[in-house]
Amino acid sequence: MSRFWSPLVHQLTPYVPGEQPKIPNLTKLNTNESPYGPSPKVYEAIKQAANDTLRLYPDPQAQDLKQALAKHTGLPADHIFVGNGSDEVLALAFQALLKQDKPLLFPDISYSFYPVYCQMYQVNYEQIPLDQNFNINLADYNRPKGGIIFPNPNAPTGIALPLSEIRQLLDNNPDTVILVDEAYVDFGAESAVALVKDYPNLLVTQTFSKSWALAGLRVGFAVGQPELIEGLIRVKDSFNSYPLDRLALAGAIAAVEDQDYFNTACRKVISAREKLTQALNQLGFEVLPSSANFVFARHPKHEGAWLAQKLRENALLVRHFNQPRIHDFLRITLGTDDQNKLLIQLLTNLTNQ
Amino acid sequence: MSRFWSPLVHQLTPYVPGEQPKIPNLTKLNTNESPYGPSPKVYEAIKQAANDTLRLYPDPQAQDLKQALAKHTGLPADHIFVGNGSDEVLALAFQALLKQDKPLLFPDISYSFYPVYCQMYQVNYEQIPLDQNFNINLADYNRPKGGIIFPNPNAPTGIALPLSEIRQLLDNNPDTVILVDEAYVDFGAESAVALVKDYPNLLVTQTFSKSWALAGLRVGFAVGQPELIEGLIRVKDSFNSYPLDRLALAGAIAAVEDQDYFNTACRKVISAREKLTQALNQLGFEVLPSSANFVFARHPKHEGAWLAQKLRENALLVRHFNQPRIHDFLRITLGTDDQNKLLIQLLTNLTNQ
Repeated sequence: MSRFWSPLVHQLTPYVPGEQPKIPNLTKLNTNESPYGPSPKVYEAIKQAANDTLRLYPDPQAQDLKQALAKHTGLPADHIFVGNGSDEVLALAFQALLKQDKPLLFPDISYSFYPVYCQMYQVNYEQIPLDQNFNINLADYNRPKGGIIFPNPNAPTGIALPLSEIRQLLDNNPDTVILVDEAYVDFGAESAVALVKDYPNLLVTQTFSKSWALAGLRVGFAVGQPELIEGLIRVKDSFNSYPLDRLALAGAIAAVEDQDYFNTACRKVISAREKLTQALNQLGFEVLPSSANFVFARHPKHEGAWLAQKLRENALLVRHFNQPRIHDFLRITLGTDDQNKLLIQLLTNLTNQ
Repeated sequence: MSRFWSPLVHQLTPYVPGEQPKIPNLTKLNTNESPYGPSPKVYEAIKQAANDTLRLYPDPQAQDLKQALAKHTGLPADHIFVGNGSDEVLALAFQALLKQDKPLLFPDISYSFYPVYCQMYQVNYEQIPLDQNFNINLADYNRPKGGIIFPNPNAPTGIALPLSEIRQLLDNNPDTVILVDEAYVDFGAESAVALVKDYPNLLVTQTFSKSWALAGLRVGFAVGQPELIEGLIRVKDSFNSYPLDRLALAGAIAAVEDQDYFNTACRKVISAREKLTQALNQLGFEVLPSSANFVFARHPKHEGAWLAQKLRENALLVRHFNQPRIHDFLRITLGTDDQNKLLIQLLTNLTNQ
């Protein structure tokens, strides 16, 4: 605490991201990064962009990346907004669209940055409990609201909602902005991008950090009708004109253009997920049905915190949330085949103790 | 305007940065970029960082870059904060430190992003007029205030305050945060970083966009005692955990480590400034005494807007501000020797018309 801080800062409880420790030979299954790395074309594009033009500001509108994403999503470029990771895009959306008089609604078990943004930007909110099977029940969102946000698939459960339910939610709430946070959508859920042309109140966010294997590059984007995109641009241009540097732009464009590599990588993660889920089931774990690049699992006889700690002692990190209802669970990122095997080996030993 | 926007967004007038047009063979003296490009070691570092680790999040604390800047500034790493360009660092400082009940004070002719931040973050402010010679007169800041911010050298005038005056301001205002925005300090002004150890209320911001020739990389930093830095960290971690990507970190570190290249480049800009100032004087221009990588000049017989337009017709961009008191001026970035010669040639023709 400091007398020099603005009054708001005294009340902030910042988001704590998953650990990024600098331990060699660590098996890192705690932050939902890709085990495979990006398309080799990304490296080439970055190397080419490492030249004298770095002395010049990047394009503040990031038109080339928007064009590439327009092609990828099948929508015009004025339906795309890009930012410094989807965290920045979400923060701008909280300020531009979700801060209303009535409360913002989101699930009680969800991305833990949402309540942090609400605190930071003084957004009134209500958390709607997941049902007893950890599903989002959209009927529960039928109450006074200034906006709705949820991840699809949800994190950290991995459970996805079908598009038909999202469409119904949009139909029932034509005057409310609904933000679907699709950080993990490419691993098997249905994207609401398909609904953007029909719903002026729908914003969809995605990220390059998971399926595109570029967490180190900090690129995220939003898809919506120009009316919503313009709100984001106004806030962004009142904050920071050039959040995406020349190298991030070059790398992200090269990634989007290599659709084959992307599709293959997503398929590999999905198939690894099916295999890991089976193996965990065989060890007695309950595994929630995941459409993400992670699984959320608990063992009836072993506490989540204990398992996470023991895995850590064996240089393998998973994520544990010390939080009501889910403290028995581990969130385990899909790794390479070898990493997943190592995990199962360690868990076999631990659950047999 | 949209019914889906948050109430605040309707009132925003976003900052408009200098143009970044995609015209080949343009002489671009409008956004204060470096004419020389960064150290070649920056390219090497980026190329080396374009590897499989891009799939992993960057270090959210950016410790390696903070260490490099600690060595550069002669202060411990906990005195350093880094962000996505100094615009992001400034935006966080407005939220964390400068938003107080009493008004923030800054010069009426200054970086035009300051009033935009105030609008965005609802910071009460008062603009203090420069004196008749376009100097900041710090005696005028002796009035009720919640904070003070000014660039040193000031922009777009280029005029620097001596450190002795800044020290006196700090002595007179021990309970108020004073932010010295040193985007251009390396081109001949005295840095207030030297005062940080003595004043817990002093925050100094700098950027990699000008003297380090890395506008395309989006890296800025702040220097202050840990109490102020902690306020910035809290707001940053409530907004976006990883604003600096792996390539920006690698490039910035390589730049800081090549001090010889940096010193030579700054000296070249300073010497070009002296030459250009003389040439402009010979054409009848009044040139304010600049300590920056640009000059601010007006001609007694030719309007600023007209000169800027005519230069533009000759594929040379300078910055013109259509704003009271300074609408007769051109802000001209120092270019390469050839670019500066071209500018003088064009202005010779124009002022002889």
